[in-house]
Amino acid sequence: IAWKGGPVFSKGAASFKVKGRIQYDAGMLATPHSVQDRAKGYSNELRRLRLGGEGQLGGGFGYKLELELSDNSVDLVDTFIGYEKGKWLVTLGNQNAFQSLDELISDTGGSVMERAAFTDAFGFERRLGLSAQYRSGLLLAQAGIFSDSADSLTNDADGPDGGDENNSYGVDGRIVLAPKLGKTQLHFGLSGHWRDFQRLSETPQRYRQRAYLHSANSRFLSTPRIAADGETHYGAEFAGVRGPLWWAGEAHWLRVSRPGLADPTFFGGYGEVGYVLTGESRGYRNGIFGIVKPARPVGSGGWGALQATLRYDYLSLNDRDIVGGTQNAIIAALVWTPVEYLRFNVNYARLDYSDAAILAGGRKDYGVDVIAWRAELDF
Amino acid sequence: IAWKGGPVFSKGAASFKVKGRIQYDAGMLATPHSVQDRAKGYSNELRRLRLGGEGQLGGGFGYKLELELSDNSVDLVDTFIGYEKGKWLVTLGNQNAFQSLDELISDTGGSVMERAAFTDAFGFERRLGLSAQYRSGLLLAQAGIFSDSADSLTNDADGPDGGDENNSYGVDGRIVLAPKLGKTQLHFGLSGHWRDFQRLSETPQRYRQRAYLHSANSRFLSTPRIAADGETHYGAEFAGVRGPLWWAGEAHWLRVSRPGLADPTFFGGYGEVGYVLTGESRGYRNGIFGIVKPARPVGSGGWGALQATLRYDYLSLNDRDIVGGTQNAIIAALVWTPVEYLRFNVNYARLDYSDAAILAGGRKDYGVDVIAWRAELDF
Amino acid sequence: IAWKGGPVFSKGAASFKVKGRIQYDAGMLATPHSVQDRAKGYSNELRRLRLGGEGQLGGGFGYKLELELSDNSVDLVDTFIGYEKGKWLVTLGNQNAFQSLDELISDTGGSVMERAAFTDAFGFERRLGLSAQYRSGLLLAQAGIFSDSADSLTNDADGPDGGDENNSYGVDGRIVLAPKLGKTQLHFGLSGHWRDFQRLSETPQRYRQRAYLHSANSRFLSTPRIAADGETHYGAEFAGVRGPLWWAGEAHWLRVSRPGLADPTFFGGYGEVGYVLTGESRGYRNGIFGIVKPARPVGSGGWGALQATLRYDYLSLNDRDIVGGTQNAIIAALVWTPVEYLRFNVNYARLDYSDAAILAGGRKDYGVDVIAWRAELDF
Repeated sequence: IAWKGGPVFSKGAASFKVKGRIQYDAGMLATPHSVQDRAKGYSNELRRLRLGGEGQLGGGFGYKLELELSDNSVDLVDTFIGYEKGKWLVTLGNQNAFQSLDELISDTGGSVMERAAFTDAFGFERRLGLSAQYRSGLLLAQAGIFSDSADSLTNDADGPDGGDENNSYGVDGRIVLAPKLGKTQLHFGLSGHWRDFQRLSETPQRYRQRAYLHSANSRFLSTPRIAADGETHYGAEFAGVRGPLWWAGEAHWLRVSRPGLADPTFFGGYGEVGYVLTGESRGYRNGIFGIVKPARPVGSGGWGALQATLRYDYLSLNDRDIVGGTQNAIIAALVWTPVEYLRFNVNYARLDYSDAAILAGGRKDYGVDVIAWRAELDF
Repeated sequence: IAWKGGPVFSKGAASFKVKGRIQYDAGMLATPHSVQDRAKGYSNELRRLRLGGEGQLGGGFGYKLELELSDNSVDLVDTFIGYEKGKWLVTLGNQNAFQSLDELISDTGGSVMERAAFTDAFGFERRLGLSAQYRSGLLLAQAGIFSDSADSLTNDADGPDGGDENNSYGVDGRIVLAPKLGKTQLHFGLSGHWRDFQRLSETPQRYRQRAYLHSANSRFLSTPRIAADGETHYGAEFAGVRGPLWWAGEAHWLRVSRPGLADPTFFGGYGEVGYVLTGESRGYRNGIFGIVKPARPVGSGGWGALQATLRYDYLSLNDRDIVGGTQNAIIAALVWTPVEYLRFNVNYARLDYSDAAILAGGRKDYGVDVIAWRAELDF
Repeated sequence: IAWKGGPVFSKGAASFKVKGRIQYDAGMLATPHSVQDRAKGYSNELRRLRLGGEGQLGGGFGYKLELELSDNSVDLVDTFIGYEKGKWLVTLGNQNAFQSLDELISDTGGSVMERAAFTDAFGFERRLGLSAQYRSGLLLAQAGIFSDSADSLTNDADGPDGGDENNSYGVDGRIVLAPKLGKTQLHFGLSGHWRDFQRLSETPQRYRQRAYLHSANSRFLSTPRIAADGETHYGAEFAGVRGPLWWAGEAHWLRVSRPGLADPTFFGGYGEVGYVLTGESRGYRNGIFGIVKPARPVGSGGWGALQATLRYDYLSLNDRDIVGGTQNAIIAALVWTPVEYLRFNVNYARLDYSDAAILAGGRKDYGVDVIAWRAELDF
């Protein structure tokens, strides 16, 4: 029995670990007085609750199996069967489709409370599929073929007379180079994604985003419903760590294929710098950032780890004839990790909108302020 | 590895325990012939199914994380992060708000199958919040600030155009003195509760209660919908244990704040005496009753423990211009605990109503009889 | 700590084991061009996801507690408290009602991906109830009294003004003789089932079945809605194992009781032969088939176990004035078990319909082809 937040059991090549997660969020949203929306003011929620396990069966076969309770409905998160042999890892089941660095970082390992605006606006989610990963030295290459999210594939998800005959599919790939220059770990990534909506194209698409705070549900940015038959998106990632300092930036373009009309391309991106004030380093492994493990945790003569991040987050849902609005946001975050697997996150965000979907009196260009905090446990 | 129904793993200051619960109920409801309601006769249900874990992370930080399946929908029960230091315990997350002795006792540790009528009628439930507890010698003091239940705070819980901007909040506190006089453990408690509905006051409130049996869903007592902007409630508790004998009583008043109208005050209370026929004592710890641990369990040369309880349970939802009905009930219960963590519960209840919400022919004053049984497992 | 896919903990007479299951399905359905139905073509789904535990409390008392996520809604599967003493086992809770050999075999232990058509068409499901089992030498006898499925008994399952006062009940029994002739294990079974719908008879019944593939939701066979007040059904089972060879066959009759009208009797049955190409035997225990445990698993110098099955599956929902259609199906299956607890299943099915509920142009008699595959993990 080893220990990683919870017990890890093993016998020969087989192993098992219980997994759990709690995220409890609260925040304040301040808008101009002329905004008539219920999202204003205080809100709180149990953001995520997760229960599951992961393990190895022997022979290179492993699995992860998790249930998430989010918004009081049960969601599937990572639930897959994997096979690892040497530098190769094959994964079958519900999983992330290598969408972007920010999306792939665990939600309990992020530098700020909510991921970059484009990750929600562009509809990143786990999907059922088959993927392969190759890792060797500096190189990490990932590719897969995916259908749709598990809940979009259920028997009652496709209309009253439909059944679950959703036959959309997509192909996704990502390449990361992670060279180390002296004490500096660098990260260069590119990802490309193509999806055919197939019969899903009978229903129009919408791209939209909240005002940073998830517990306030109103979408200040939103395109109208777009009749579309597919999507192509691609992203570039650059990041690095050197001692207590890290930085990261991404740019991501999504092009919506409209039959008979010009295709709009939406764009999102962010840049951040962060510093661990207590001197530890932010973890980096397998092409993503991890958590900061406190060198002097509470209960062992210390106060844990404290990290600070400053992020600029941009999103534009304006292109061609589509006006969904743009966001220019500054986010400042402090994360305190008293003991490993437990974090407290306090964020301030200033979001400036143009062409917002929610009017402030007659104005569509204005700014909102958010203060948000989160307690999160993850093992 | 220790054992408490299931295994308890620990390593240094860290620990983990799997938790599970099954409650399977059945019962008969006999009403006057003139009552036209489907609740009459036999009914059964899987009352509660719970799966989760609890543990310690070290440094005084711990957690509990549970999912409950009740009425086939997933509910949150205790799901929180705690920090304990000396006599203080701070808890953040979904938890009980120190409502009353009967509410705080585990549903698998109760003396009768269902809690006192006022606990449901007054809408006691777990809520998201932050609480602190201080315990020293005879004294237990608990206080917290709470928002609403986790499912009331989800994104789709607040009306079709609303989002989850429910901003209700309340403050709750409870003080318990638990002196020991010779072999007699006494319990004196007071609790006070104040809540501002904020935007929830747009929807009227209703206070109501079933005829003891949860599987029969009809509410024989029910107020009309009341336009209200807040609640104040307070309760008094007195209880004791001496050897195999125990007793308990509570009185609880709830005042509904109606803007522009006189505020009605509803009242509920109960008194009970119980006796462990096989000689064990009912547990008492941290300001609540626990279970009876059998001295001679099945499989170890005995037949387990048997306890008997007689309870009087009163509820009045009549005050000012509001007529919700009153209940005078006598409940008799036998609980057999063959081995620790497993109980079988048989109850008889006679409930006399006046001003009932369900008519018996033209009468509003009549009585019903309930026989109910439950198998329950909890570890 | 022992190991069965996951860890098994025990201390004295008490024990605990975590349980998990993942099934990921995909398939193609080819119909005549004239069929206008969305079920055509490719579909996939996360078929089942299960998380739970089972254990012993001591004194002969044990339990199983599982949550299943299927079609993205949470279902109850085996969730019961048991008591075992000598040759007797008493079980209280949500469980199978000894419906048929094919229904009782675990869905991760089946010879083909989906059970015989009659098991779905006749509405076999787990129900809340109390059962007893007696096992001695060749004989296995099982009987129980059951109410309804846990989700049919919830408070909101019985109509908007109803509550959960579903009072249907049934009695079920099964007898198995399992003699061993030399190296040949034989299985003879009979089961009988009677059910009174009680107030459920207010809603008409429908019997129907998919085209083998669960992810394609359209029902090619379906009776009209039948006003009925009860059901009687009975089945005969014959099966055997000898070394790597096994065979099985069942016949099942269901008679629907229609007040004031002649009662129709529907019929289903199947016959199969299977062979473990790698030489192992299919497990047989407690009156059902189990899995093939690979003698040379991947990772231990081998390639696992491979088994092949050919099954004929018949269903008739035509009787009296009811025309629900008939199915004549041939199913061929290959199951690869690389390591114990993990299987990959590839199936081909040809289903010939007469009186189908979905028209092919003007025709009701035609055939469809299905190719389906599944990855499944179960511990």
